[in-house]
Amino acid sequence: MSYLDQITSPTLLINEKITRANLKRMADKASRHGKKLVPHWKTAQSHEIGNWAKEYGIREVTASSIKLAEYLCGQGWDNIHIAFPFNVREIDRLNRLAANKSLSVQVVNPVTAKKLADQLSERVGFYIEIDAGYGRTGVHISDFGTIEEILREAKKSDKLQFKGFYLHPGHTYYTPDKSGIYEQSRQALHMLKVKYQSEFPNLLTRVGDTPGCAVMEDFGDVDELGPGNFVFFDLMQAELGSCAKEDIAVCLAVPVVDINKERKEILIHGGGVHLAKDVLVDASGNKNFGEVVFLTESGWTIPSDRSYLKSISQEHGVIKASDSLMASVQIGDLLGILPVHSCMTADCMGEYLSLDGRKIDHCEGACWK
Amino acid sequence: MSYLDQITSPTLLINEKITRANLKRMADKASRHGKKLVPHWKTAQSHEIGNWAKEYGIREVTASSIKLAEYLCGQGWDNIHIAFPFNVREIDRLNRLAANKSLSVQVVNPVTAKKLADQLSERVGFYIEIDAGYGRTGVHISDFGTIEEILREAKKSDKLQFKGFYLHPGHTYYTPDKSGIYEQSRQALHMLKVKYQSEFPNLLTRVGDTPGCAVMEDFGDVDELGPGNFVFFDLMQAELGSCAKEDIAVCLAVPVVDINKERKEILIHGGGVHLAKDVLVDASGNKNFGEVVFLTESGWTIPSDRSYLKSISQEHGVIKASDSLMASVQIGDLLGILPVHSCMTADCMGEYLSLDGRKIDHCEGACWK
Repeated sequence: MSYLDQITSPTLLINEKITRANLKRMADKASRHGKKLVPHWKTAQSHEIGNWAKEYGIREVTASSIKLAEYLCGQGWDNIHIAFPFNVREIDRLNRLAANKSLSVQVVNPVTAKKLADQLSERVGFYIEIDAGYGRTGVHISDFGTIEEILREAKKSDKLQFKGFYLHPGHTYYTPDKSGIYEQSRQALHMLKVKYQSEFPNLLTRVGDTPGCAVMEDFGDVDELGPGNFVFFDLMQAELGSCAKEDIAVCLAVPVVDINKERKEILIHGGGVHLAKDVLVDASGNKNFGEVVFLTESGWTIPSDRSYLKSISQEHGVIKASDSLMASVQIGDLLGILPVHSCMTADCMGEYLSLDGRKIDHCEGACWK
Repeated sequence: MSYLDQITSPTLLINEKITRANLKRMADKASRHGKKLVPHWKTAQSHEIGNWAKEYGIREVTASSIKLAEYLCGQGWDNIHIAFPFNVREIDRLNRLAANKSLSVQVVNPVTAKKLADQLSERVGFYIEIDAGYGRTGVHISDFGTIEEILREAKKSDKLQFKGFYLHPGHTYYTPDKSGIYEQSRQALHMLKVKYQSEFPNLLTRVGDTPGCAVMEDFGDVDELGPGNFVFFDLMQAELGSCAKEDIAVCLAVPVVDINKERKEILIHGGGVHLAKDVLVDASGNKNFGEVVFLTESGWTIPSDRSYLKSISQEHGVIKASDSLMASVQIGDLLGILPVHSCMTADCMGEYLSLDGRKIDHCEGACWK
């Protein structure tokens, strides 16, 4: 029986071969440059995909929340890093988790460092997150006063162990000229390493975005690479030049429920609750919530004439269809939709279906909240 | 112990008093106009909130998918209507469900009507969804050929029972002058009733959007009102004039993880995976992903000087804070965020916490997929 026969409602498909190729390519790149790859597992959020990753030498992962860290425990990771400014309301939860697991957290202010130093009952590592221009979160690269106050607070505890500096230059997603950002990231982390290495000889630096890690070839003296999205990629990454559409490893299988010949539109069961509402907007203001691929027994093929989701609501999606798609599509067909933002789509869907018809776990599906 | 003491991570709060007031107001309005209120339960997706609704005379609900219909079964509803163009891949699932439950579905083309007529083993009602100008889905109001073909196909089966016409004028969400749309909706349904009532004397008509049902005072000869969002309302509805911000019945409690005094920004744990990514954009292009309220022992208060979420990513939210919020906020505090689109936020969160500290069910949390 084909995996396609199992599908009656919106279902997130994963192509294992593409996923493994993405993991291998990034692992090879890290290895070629002598860097440690610590992928951000907020994209895959899966034990089984974690086991694939381990085959390419990946030994540590990053979580986006303590909930995801809890899910990932017991799976043999050498360390789980929670790459979100630590939330002091979760110290008890962190203590419980750290009793049996090597963990690290992210700290961006002295208040949090002090609370951790006061209340940690278990050893936990920490990175200081640095903002070198993105402006979302982190201690500003020039704010040595705050960095040193954090380090001073941490020293009061034998539980809270400084590991190094973490940088997520998320503005690579928005800035056309990315080379300036890469240079800025390398320089920032190099400067911090030079400044603090005598006091902390094992200090590590990590840089974390997929557009950068996919394209950069000079990582300077950065120690660790922490991209997340590269495991699956998506249309946003394809538009940024991080990947080809052929590298996208997940697609949402959706049933066709109506066809409007006049408007050349196809109505699918597949909306914001399945794909999330991330959108690409072209220069003329046209919105694209996902692109159509043709499902086959062995995966999917990308048509040369593009059909795309022009609008979505909670459960509905409207495809603007090419002439060739209009000529062949029938009510009851399944189409595939390449997502704009695969991390969010996987989070909405909560599980995957492999092309050999197996369900593959995802944190949301298995451990709600 | 206050409900606030339970919260360590993003949590969706529900104010029962406001929810009940919203249910009562719409039920009273329907009753005043002699209409039957059949709320779209894609917003609440909850058994417990369903029990509140029953206290205001509500006996039937609408689901957005067969999955939600399955969840709602066994809860004493007189009928569950699945208000999404029926997906022919789910006929077996529909037959199983209809064996023990009065159900109705929505049909927008003869292909689907024929498959249902051929394959239904249980009695199921259906509405024909009409498009009177929204342009998302439904048979165009002028397309009598298609309406009659659907009715012809349905007559071939003694299982598929025509109930009437359903209209969701979703363009009330986008059109400043709504009165024209209300008039168009009333006229369209009236015309269909006049045309088909001799053949189908029990024919019903239903109109379904919250902005319309909240504001309209003349529903003409429409029989049933089917709004959904009114149970909770949200910032989008407040902006549309359907409600006041004080009528919004849910808010996301989020922990403060960092404060940037220079930029007057507050970083919270609360992003697209919690709120969804619906956004309001003002005339100057400023984005608003949610607005800050102050949490209290008995609920929340809306400050007079507005602070709002200026950006969100997967787990991060950045609040542009008012001076008074900046003066009082501390790392580790909880803030409340009124959502832009409550249906999507509830779907992301998968459960509610009541103000007396009880967990309240939601379909996503209880029956994944």
